Amino acid sequence: MEMSSRVSHMQSSPIRRLVPYANAARKAGKKVYPLNIGQPDIKTPKGFFNAIRDVDLEVLAYADSAGDATLIEAIQAYYKTYDMDFDQDEIIITNGGSEALLFAIITLCDPGDNIVVAEPFYTNYNGFASAVNVEVRGITTKAEDGFHFPAREEIEKVLDDKTRAFILNNPGNPTGVVYTAEEIKMIVDIAIDKDIFIVADEVYREFVYDGLDYKSFGNFPEAEDRVVIVDSVSKRYSACGARIGSLASKNKDFMGGVLKLCQGRLCVPTIEMIGATELYRTPVDYFKEVNDEYRKRRDTVFNALKKMDGVICEEPKGAFYVAVKLPVDDAEKFIIWMLSDFDYQGETLMMAPLEGFYASQGLGKNEARIAYILETGELEKAMKVLEEALKAYPGRQVI
Amino acid sequence: MEMSSRVSHMQSSPIRRLVPYANAARKAGKKVYPLNIGQPDIKTPKGFFNAIRDVDLEVLAYADSAGDATLIEAIQAYYKTYDMDFDQDEIIITNGGSEALLFAIITLCDPGDNIVVAEPFYTNYNGFASAVNVEVRGITTKAEDGFHFPAREEIEKVLDDKTRAFILNNPGNPTGVVYTAEEIKMIVDIAIDKDIFIVADEVYREFVYDGLDYKSFGNFPEAEDRVVIVDSVSKRYSACGARIGSLASKNKDFMGGVLKLCQGRLCVPTIEMIGATELYRTPVDYFKEVNDEYRKRRDTVFNALKKMDGVICEEPKGAFYVAVKLPVDDAEKFIIWMLSDFDYQGETLMMAPLEGFYASQGLGKNEARIAYILETGELEKAMKVLEEALKAYPGRQVI
Repeated sequence: MEMSSRVSHMQSSPIRRLVPYANAARKAGKKVYPLNIGQPDIKTPKGFFNAIRDVDLEVLAYADSAGDATLIEAIQAYYKTYDMDFDQDEIIITNGGSEALLFAIITLCDPGDNIVVAEPFYTNYNGFASAVNVEVRGITTKAEDGFHFPAREEIEKVLDDKTRAFILNNPGNPTGVVYTAEEIKMIVDIAIDKDIFIVADEVYREFVYDGLDYKSFGNFPEAEDRVVIVDSVSKRYSACGARIGSLASKNKDFMGGVLKLCQGRLCVPTIEMIGATELYRTPVDYFKEVNDEYRKRRDTVFNALKKMDGVICEEPKGAFYVAVKLPVDDAEKFIIWMLSDFDYQGETLMMAPLEGFYASQGLGKNEARIAYILETGELEKAMKVLEEALKAYPGRQVI
Repeated sequence: MEMSSRVSHMQSSPIRRLVPYANAARKAGKKVYPLNIGQPDIKTPKGFFNAIRDVDLEVLAYADSAGDATLIEAIQAYYKTYDMDFDQDEIIITNGGSEALLFAIITLCDPGDNIVVAEPFYTNYNGFASAVNVEVRGITTKAEDGFHFPAREEIEKVLDDKTRAFILNNPGNPTGVVYTAEEIKMIVDIAIDKDIFIVADEVYREFVYDGLDYKSFGNFPEAEDRVVIVDSVSKRYSACGARIGSLASKNKDFMGGVLKLCQGRLCVPTIEMIGATELYRTPVDYFKEVNDEYRKRRDTVFNALKKMDGVICEEPKGAFYVAVKLPVDDAEKFIIWMLSDFDYQGETLMMAPLEGFYASQGLGKNEARIAYILETGELEKAMKVLEEALKAYPGRQVI
């Protein structure tokens, strides 16, 4: 009895599949810095837990398939602060950004259709797409260019008549890129020209550094019927375990399609929606503090990486990741070696190998993603470990 | 810009799509008995809310993709009471039974494959399957036979070389059928003969009446590599809003495939898993009380239906639904008429039309599902409303 071809050919998560090596390293007494996963150590705003503590229900009943009205109202108010004006029925609550992406792909694409991403891209786009027989095509962006877009012609070459949408993450995971207003406009123009959708995964919207201007895809009235905004409380409020995401769009056909899928899975958890409503009511000061902390961490990691011989990366401007080219034969092998055969004063670290973040074969083999989700003191030590590991690694290879 | 064909052709939920008519009826001052949806009024065990009140976390972090180990342990212990012995890695926690079903279908079927159900079936199987381009084929069962299976030859005729699995709900929604040990054994034999899977949706396992013997598909060692058990806390503990389900199987390839899908969506909500762990630790006395209450409700509804002229149904033996053949031209039209144009002493009721619960075209047009999820006093009044409505309906038609 074979499993389906679509699942058999699905790669296992490059973010999570090396966890057994990390567990073995910990068992062997090593301290492992978990820089593989975007799990921040930032405290979740207390409003979430307070709201849950106050829940007074006798029957934990189904919620509306589209989500609780009060949570949707809180999200409407949040969007207003970014000059985005969505009606109540233009927002649907999902099980994390993950379900938002899956439902967007199913609603837009039939089997054999494709979506276009900027590679390296958030690797789970691939998982969602291949689970439902949709192809992911990558516009290749490079560490040397800070992962900004190539020229319009290069982008258009990737599209074909089966392309239904761009799915773009801005600020970008795994690259930390923040697209310029000109880049965003170029994508909007292409989408209009080619009559396709833009699924804008903007879950890191608040994590933009150095006073850079941030332009949302939700700010283009000329494209509002083809833009879908994906959001989540996971990173925004350090509440990854809440699994509350959302889809927002002014396209009624799109929202109608998504609602059918939502009715099939009945609803999103009630308790988590109650907590998430309070998250979206968090005073904006919260972001200033958090943003400042991440910027310090970014500086710590980037300054350390710059000094490492043979390491290539540009300063990331957003999110909390940096994608680096390493002077190694194979980043996955290198990470496994660090966990299994290396330590520096009893410590080692884990990163995510980047090959699985590319749609194009053969790219990213010597690249890795570092999530700067620990305090600066810890990150300094982790970067020291990386520096020493790169010196000691038998597969060292400078390109 | 068209939406995908798979979503455009998906039916909207027959359980939920008439809600706007019910809302309008309520606005017009009518009392509406909501017998359309399996939302019980039974109190959720307090352990759920107590556990959540005690949550003391600073960071609401990602959980394991497969689910919290403590919840899985609680489910293992629960299965032992049914003589089912699953290892830790043979159980995966899902976003409700809904995600369990979706992931099972994706893992077993490629586009163009089919699953075989006993129709009328839980209508959302259709939604999940069509979202991922899998066909649903129905073994027709009839109200006159209490919705038991036809002979083996009839069942085998429905299968073809694209059939990957049975998906069977036992006790059955919408029919209330409880399959006999012989029926279950027959399905197991067919699955082995035809080398296909059995996805056993046993979320109503505790809701079996009249001291009937219940046989789980998890009790056949000869088929343990092809059986997948779907479960959920929704009905079992009246916690529909928790959205905690699970998949259990001894087939390692299957569980490996599901785990890849789980890693893609990262994890299930932490807080709800903490609550659900306490649900699975609820003393078994709870079920006796609840079972007794539902049995009384079943009696109330069934006794009333028996007396209604032209209504056909057999006594349901499990779950909390009864599927009835009505003396009307079209059950959906009748329900809309009840909500829009009828009341009995200011009251009316809502049911789910059954046509959307069939895979075969043209069946179920004069059938409806009644969920007996209110107190007996309320149900008596609701049945009186139904009796009067059937007399007054202009489209009355006795077959």
